[in-house]
Amino acid sequence: MPNLLVDERDQKFVLYEQLKIDELCQYAKYGEFSREMFDMVLEAAQKLAEKELAPTNQDGDVKGVSLEGGQVRVPESFHQAYRYYCEGGWASLPIDQEMGGQGFPSALYCATMELFAAANQAFSMYPGLTIGAARLIEHYGTEEQQREYMDKMYTMEWCGTMCLTEPQAGSDVGALRTRATKRPDGSYSIVGNKIFISAGDHDLSENIIHMVLARVEGAPPGTKGISIFIVPKYRIENGEFVPNDVACTAVEKKMGIHGSSTCALSFGEKESCIGYLLGQENEGMKIMFNMMNEARLAVGMQGLSQASAAYMQALRYAKDRQQGPEISTMKDPNAPKVPIFDHPDVRRMLLWMKSVTEGMRALLYYAGYCEDRVKCAPTLEEAAKYQGFLDILIPICKAWSSDMGFRVTELAVQVHGGYGYCREYPVEQNMRDVKIASIYEGTNGIQALDLVGRKLSYKQGILFKNIVQETGILLKSAKKNYRLKDIVEPFDVARKHLIEVTRYFGLKSITEDFMTPILYATPYLELFGDVAIGFMLLWQAVIADRRLQELYDDAKADTPEKKAELVKTNRSAAFYRGKLASAQFFANTILPLAPGKARSIMSGERSAIDLPEESFALF
Amino acid sequence: MPNLLVDERDQKFVLYEQLKIDELCQYAKYGEFSREMFDMVLEAAQKLAEKELAPTNQDGDVKGVSLEGGQVRVPESFHQAYRYYCEGGWASLPIDQEMGGQGFPSALYCATMELFAAANQAFSMYPGLTIGAARLIEHYGTEEQQREYMDKMYTMEWCGTMCLTEPQAGSDVGALRTRATKRPDGSYSIVGNKIFISAGDHDLSENIIHMVLARVEGAPPGTKGISIFIVPKYRIENGEFVPNDVACTAVEKKMGIHGSSTCALSFGEKESCIGYLLGQENEGMKIMFNMMNEARLAVGMQGLSQASAAYMQALRYAKDRQQGPEISTMKDPNAPKVPIFDHPDVRRMLLWMKSVTEGMRALLYYAGYCEDRVKCAPTLEEAAKYQGFLDILIPICKAWSSDMGFRVTELAVQVHGGYGYCREYPVEQNMRDVKIASIYEGTNGIQALDLVGRKLSYKQGILFKNIVQETGILLKSAKKNYRLKDIVEPFDVARKHLIEVTRYFGLKSITEDFMTPILYATPYLELFGDVAIGFMLLWQAVIADRRLQELYDDAKADTPEKKAELVKTNRSAAFYRGKLASAQFFANTILPLAPGKARSIMSGERSAIDLPEESFALF
Repeated sequence: MPNLLVDERDQKFVLYEQLKIDELCQYAKYGEFSREMFDMVLEAAQKLAEKELAPTNQDGDVKGVSLEGGQVRVPESFHQAYRYYCEGGWASLPIDQEMGGQGFPSALYCATMELFAAANQAFSMYPGLTIGAARLIEHYGTEEQQREYMDKMYTMEWCGTMCLTEPQAGSDVGALRTRATKRPDGSYSIVGNKIFISAGDHDLSENIIHMVLARVEGAPPGTKGISIFIVPKYRIENGEFVPNDVACTAVEKKMGIHGSSTCALSFGEKESCIGYLLGQENEGMKIMFNMMNEARLAVGMQGLSQASAAYMQALRYAKDRQQGPEISTMKDPNAPKVPIFDHPDVRRMLLWMKSVTEGMRALLYYAGYCEDRVKCAPTLEEAAKYQGFLDILIPICKAWSSDMGFRVTELAVQVHGGYGYCREYPVEQNMRDVKIASIYEGTNGIQALDLVGRKLSYKQGILFKNIVQETGILLKSAKKNYRLKDIVEPFDVARKHLIEVTRYFGLKSITEDFMTPILYATPYLELFGDVAIGFMLLWQAVIADRRLQELYDDAKADTPEKKAELVKTNRSAAFYRGKLASAQFFANTILPLAPGKARSIMSGERSAIDLPEESFALF
Repeated sequence: MPNLLVDERDQKFVLYEQLKIDELCQYAKYGEFSREMFDMVLEAAQKLAEKELAPTNQDGDVKGVSLEGGQVRVPESFHQAYRYYCEGGWASLPIDQEMGGQGFPSALYCATMELFAAANQAFSMYPGLTIGAARLIEHYGTEEQQREYMDKMYTMEWCGTMCLTEPQAGSDVGALRTRATKRPDGSYSIVGNKIFISAGDHDLSENIIHMVLARVEGAPPGTKGISIFIVPKYRIENGEFVPNDVACTAVEKKMGIHGSSTCALSFGEKESCIGYLLGQENEGMKIMFNMMNEARLAVGMQGLSQASAAYMQALRYAKDRQQGPEISTMKDPNAPKVPIFDHPDVRRMLLWMKSVTEGMRALLYYAGYCEDRVKCAPTLEEAAKYQGFLDILIPICKAWSSDMGFRVTELAVQVHGGYGYCREYPVEQNMRDVKIASIYEGTNGIQALDLVGRKLSYKQGILFKNIVQETGILLKSAKKNYRLKDIVEPFDVARKHLIEVTRYFGLKSITEDFMTPILYATPYLELFGDVAIGFMLLWQAVIADRRLQELYDDAKADTPEKKAELVKTNRSAAFYRGKLASAQFFANTILPLAPGKARSIMSGERSAIDLPEESFALF
């Protein structure tokens, strides 16, 4: 019985048939691995997700975290899940071996992340933040800092956090006020307040290492004067744990991810709180930026994971739930009842969910794969190419996947009818949990500005040009396949519109009209996402079509009837037929909106900024 | 200080300037009323909503309802709110005076419903269900039944419910199993189980009158054999309250509307439960159908109300919350911080919310206005015309408003950033509360089937033809105004595409391809909704343009600068300028998608139904 969290057949399709990650083993970096080893990892991840993490998900939601006497406690069931997670060494899966990790490809890590987050998004925050923090120390820490902190974090003996946000400094991180004062011994005194700190306090590990953005006295204002510090919850002095005056003053009551503690932390308000500089003074933002791609990919992964789990649940519910007769016998009160899966509107919703979820999966794993290709690229040119794909796709991975992942969970609720609105069924939680993904790690509005303001203009638009080229190659090869000719056109048209809008933005920038791209950054990201996801599905369709054809040939299925029969009886044929349907459905129902979206962006409509404040409402 | 629930200026604009409900007073039916009286009602409703209902909203969410010893208790604060509500006679506002009501127009009632639901959607369920149930008795009950039940329900001394759903009978109401057996005295013994009964039990009133669908023994299967019964929680025998074995066995734990009790009720499981037939045997569905429009309009109103409250909150937050410098000074770390309202992406979100919310408000009040016009129509023809508008628009009022109302609340959360995800701010609750509106009172999928399967085909498509004609007249008049010429085209184009798709559905039906309209019913409803809402905004733009022009003329504002100055200083000018922007924004950013939506519907894409079950996922 396959798990009900992630379609494992599709995971393998992306990893082995689309990205061919087994071919990464040709490179020295991954030379010791093999497909068999990847399969073992996947299987173990599935088991952990299904048997240990998923059963704690509702518990986390219902019980949530509590703050008692300055200490946050997570639900009891999280502790055992955490032990299993640590024992498996899951956190360090993609970490280089010389740093104490296992050195697996990131693409594979993505597949495990999807499984874990699908099982329990709130739980997955604790290792997620820890790895993010540890990576900073890996890249910028001294050997001593690595030995003291990073090693214990990669084993998850200690956890970690990222402390950026302050009450007055959210999206505008440069406005932060936490102060760092150098002490005679080279360490710093840290004083300030942080909010919305995920995994900010909890009782899963004996120590928590906070990566704290703060301003050294006399540093320049804004982002240029920010430094980053390692601030442990407990300092180790002569082998003893000494409290470091990091106080958790509140935990937020949230719409979802109740099992994840979202803390207000106060540093050095009472006694002295000591931090250790990471890298150089005023390098804080540069250091943080280096880890941004990874963190944003992880949040996109949350969007995918909840979509994935919600789709599987909705599909199962639709197959189980009997309601009403088939549409053709609707007027016969004695007609047998059928599962709601047989109702066209339900099937339409399910195929939408399937298509979008599979597209996101492909895009996100592809982003992980780009990281891998950067790491083992034989030339700087090739490394730059894959880094470029990664850089331009990251805001789409984060924003499109979180927004559309939410839509998938919303439809899963709808498929469940009244039951979908009740806590009894897991989709209700999926929907609440995933909403945060559109907000944190840079709101989706910030992602859109990053795409339009930074990524499009990087080196005269080289990143976008490379996307245009790559999709062009794919399109050309798809067009050669006469069996795909019916579905290729919408991809072609949507891509042309994306190119047209991008050129239009370029022209606007030349004429110094920066406002238009900024005003339409979010709709632009949406359009870009439609095209990017679309091309992932087209890529998959090319492969699936070939495989399906081979199966037809092998079985000598040369009539429509024989082909249909094979699809019904052969699991692989059924799967490839489903892949083709995902691409076709996306092409015919989502991509036709691309011209209208482009027209809307280029409409010149500026009411939103031209309208006086008073006209929004009178108060 | 205006309330922060509903833009009262816009309410008055719809009622008096667009629908001109004061002109209804020309008819005998509303002859005793005047605009002054309507204003008094509005003012009192605002006060009740703001001062008494809104303060209990979070309480209802946090405390919710509890089931103790078979009795449901609502949060304590609801009791006082309920008293104020009853004292004001709000429930019976639109009920005919000869039935004990106040006889006000439904359009005005809509405005009060919006206010009350915006203040506390969960609370508004109790009177909502009561009035729905009482109306059935008004229309189909004997004089004795009216005296015994209806009178007490219109004063809210007793409450009411609608008991349709059973575990196996949700959307397929014909599958219900609750049995009714005639007793010698003409009453019936009722035995069965109902679920998802809103306001099914509570302690706000001393008695609850359930309207229960059940099957009399020997009745035909399916919907044709359903009867409807009045089943009081307590029977009155010789002036005494006698328990009638209606047991609340569970209350659902839900995503939202925690203050509204959603009950599992068991009838006659232990002792005898007696019900009284309403109308004739087997007339149950016919009777229910008569009240459908009203109930669905009320649910659409919930979509509007949460959108309205969420927009007002988001706007206020955006004006209050300082974050980041203005976009043009972004690189200057010393630049002053501005409210996020000054960031283009936030303004884009807010204007989207404003435009959609105002469009829904206009459409829903218009539906109420159609009811009024039916009631006082001098000819049968005119009555039929307005009834037709109402009938075809109802599924759109319900489904479009609930789906898009949810989108508005989602954007309100996004505008709030991390705070939007926290319970501390009311938008988090708005989003959870409103989600149910897409599901109950006929899921939005059912609404779409009603539109496509029933309303489009009624009398050779007369209902749609009337819509085409009415929008055509409006378009013609808008086109004559040279100041509106820039915004008229998208309305024209979108309308043409709706007509084209409708014709296409008609052709499909002629060729007996019923599957295509059924498969695309939901996307069709969405497109129809876009056009319907669009034309409401165009209608408003025509009026607002004229009024604004008058203000310009009066103030001798004859240059762009003077006009802009007037808009900034004159509240009416600011408002009308905002109305024009709502229409223009909708025209340029939402309606351009109409051609793509139409293309998608007519694409012939049938994967969803053609795909074998096995291809959706392998389990």
